[in-house]
Amino acid sequence: MSQHVAKAYREELLLLDHKIAQMGGLTEHNLGRAFDALSNQDLQLAEHVILSDKEIDRLQVDIESQVIQMIALRGPLAEDLRHILGALKITGNLERIGDLAKNIAKRSRATATEQYPKPLMGGLRNMVDLALSQLKDVLDAYADRNADLALSVWARDEQIDAMYNSVFRELLTYMMEDPRNISFCTHLLFGAKNIERIGDHTTNIAETIHFLVHGTEISTDRPKNDDTTKPANDPRDQG
Amino acid sequence: MSQHVAKAYREELLLLDHKIAQMGGLTEHNLGRAFDALSNQDLQLAEHVILSDKEIDRLQVDIESQVIQMIALRGPLAEDLRHILGALKITGNLERIGDLAKNIAKRSRATATEQYPKPLMGGLRNMVDLALSQLKDVLDAYADRNADLALSVWARDEQIDAMYNSVFRELLTYMMEDPRNISFCTHLLFGAKNIERIGDHTTNIAETIHFLVHGTEISTDRPKNDDTTKPANDPRDQG
Repeated sequence: MSQHVAKAYREELLLLDHKIAQMGGLTEHNLGRAFDALSNQDLQLAEHVILSDKEIDRLQVDIESQVIQMIALRGPLAEDLRHILGALKITGNLERIGDLAKNIAKRSRATATEQYPKPLMGGLRNMVDLALSQLKDVLDAYADRNADLALSVWARDEQIDAMYNSVFRELLTYMMEDPRNISFCTHLLFGAKNIERIGDHTTNIAETIHFLVHGTEISTDRPKNDDTTKPANDPRDQG
Repeated sequence: MSQHVAKAYREELLLLDHKIAQMGGLTEHNLGRAFDALSNQDLQLAEHVILSDKEIDRLQVDIESQVIQMIALRGPLAEDLRHILGALKITGNLERIGDLAKNIAKRSRATATEQYPKPLMGGLRNMVDLALSQLKDVLDAYADRNADLALSVWARDEQIDAMYNSVFRELLTYMMEDPRNISFCTHLLFGAKNIERIGDHTTNIAETIHFLVHGTEISTDRPKNDDTTKPANDPRDQG
């Protein structure tokens, strides 16, 4: 490969990472705003988020076509091929996170006019705060190729799952106490599940980073703690 | 490329499609069994499904590493590159469908001992039946590179969305009628959402096939009809 071609190739790899960072930043921004729209019953903000998800989708299409072009033109090998295919995976996860944030924003439409007990939103807010900090860390880990930071993101996903389990049970209690809460709480249940899924996609990105840096999978099983599918009378749920 | 190498290359492409077919067949099988486990409250079957999802995951890892190897060794171009990256996308969608089927099976654990009015399951059964027929068609469309069949799968996803909307409202009604239904219905709500998502992933596969065959995106917007996030007092919901 001539020096000129090698330089152009390096620049393409940098551009790829730049687009991932841009897509990640927008996704993070949208998730925060989606939750604000839901909790403040701010329909205008919700519509902004829904609309700007198209920009995230556009970036994914852009990254995908750059990946195809680079594979066809550069014939990447070993580490570079891992880099390029890693970016392809990460862009897929970011697109899904964007979609899930959009779904949270959409739930504002169904809930904007409903009265609800304010403490209801507390559990969700904690989940979103953690999901946002995880997303920020995983994007930093990608930019710096920091496998240790990626591993700590991966391990911390358990906490989001634990929060989800507690929010799930709390919302069910509200629904049983007063049937007028059912519709609103159902939307929050889906919102909570969306955040839990965002945590999973963030974990997937962490796994990809680990593979990029070390060339091996994370060796232990991924922490997975959605125990809301356990029997309702599971003794672990008592008290 | 020598004749020998060209033959080996063709065989690798065939092997890739063979693995996709195998993964798709297993996913279809698991979805049907997951629903049977849930509706018949058959915990043993549920555990079978949960366990056999690992085989689906294993196939994905296998396909991904074959893709990386083929890109590195064969330097695929144009149509072949589209084929290989298409397989990579489809395997990702199938893995998610497998996961969602596993989630449905897992809900059996939480609901196996609960009494529930049998008609409750009817709406979900219709959804699963359609999702299964869509999945079968999209796998056939991939095997035969039949873009027309893929397009008809893509268009029919609206029907799953419409069913989901009606199941969502029906389940909410049951919950409001009798708080003892809340826990069970919540699990069914998530189950219904899982099937709706399976429809989306099937649609994604249809889009990939269209791109494989024609080299262009499907030109109209994807039908998307989850209107459960519309305001609860939307006039379209009355009567």
